Amino acid sequence: MARLLHPRLDDVPLEAVLHALSDPGRLAIVRRLHDCDVAKADGLACAVAAPEGMPKATMSNHFGVLRAAGLIRSEKAGVRMVNRLRTEELAARFPGLLDAVLAAASSATR
Amino acid sequence: MARLLHPRLDDVPLEAVLHALSDPGRLAIVRRLHDCDVAKADGLACAVAAPEGMPKATMSNHFGVLRAAGLIRSEKAGVRMVNRLRTEELAARFPGLLDAVLAAASSATR
Repeated sequence: MARLLHPRLDDVPLEAVLHALSDPGRLAIVRRLHDCDVAKADGLACAVAAPEGMPKATMSNHFGVLRAAGLIRSEKAGVRMVNRLRTEELAARFPGLLDAVLAAASSATR
Repeated sequence: MARLLHPRLDDVPLEAVLHALSDPGRLAIVRRLHDCDVAKADGLACAVAAPEGMPKATMSNHFGVLRAAGLIRSEKAGVRMVNRLRTEELAARFPGLLDAVLAAASSATR
């Protein structure tokens, strides 16, 4: 498998981040990754499942867009791929942005 | 001219707002509208000019997308069209989002 490329966040334009988040499927994945981070911080195990009805290839494409936009880091862990939000780096580069998007997404589906 | 339609912000999905902001031209317009609001709050006159090199039709299309996503309100003032950000409404619906985007856009071009 080709090595996965992760951009430096300084090289990622704000528009690319907004575009990556503007798709409902990708936004759902980002929310699940965030929920997993919260669960892990509480000592719980967590794996991100595909949103209901999303084909594996679509999920994989979404991860590719999120990775290219600097939103996630993907690492091989044995035979699995572990994807994590680049939360701290994003907060340093675009303060408040991911928090505001996650809060808005969360309140929209309440 | 057809009456301009402005959606209720409760009817606007977060993804539509993010998509509207994910285009560099539209983001530039939103920043200019915000700068105009700041200038007007200081008692200065302000009109939003097209970003350099942007054709009038493109600018008009961008205003249409921004209007449909609930980001701006457009009103006839004599022969002119006045466009304003729906700042307070947006802050109520998506707290912190527009502020974070404007701050990120501003720091990216510093």
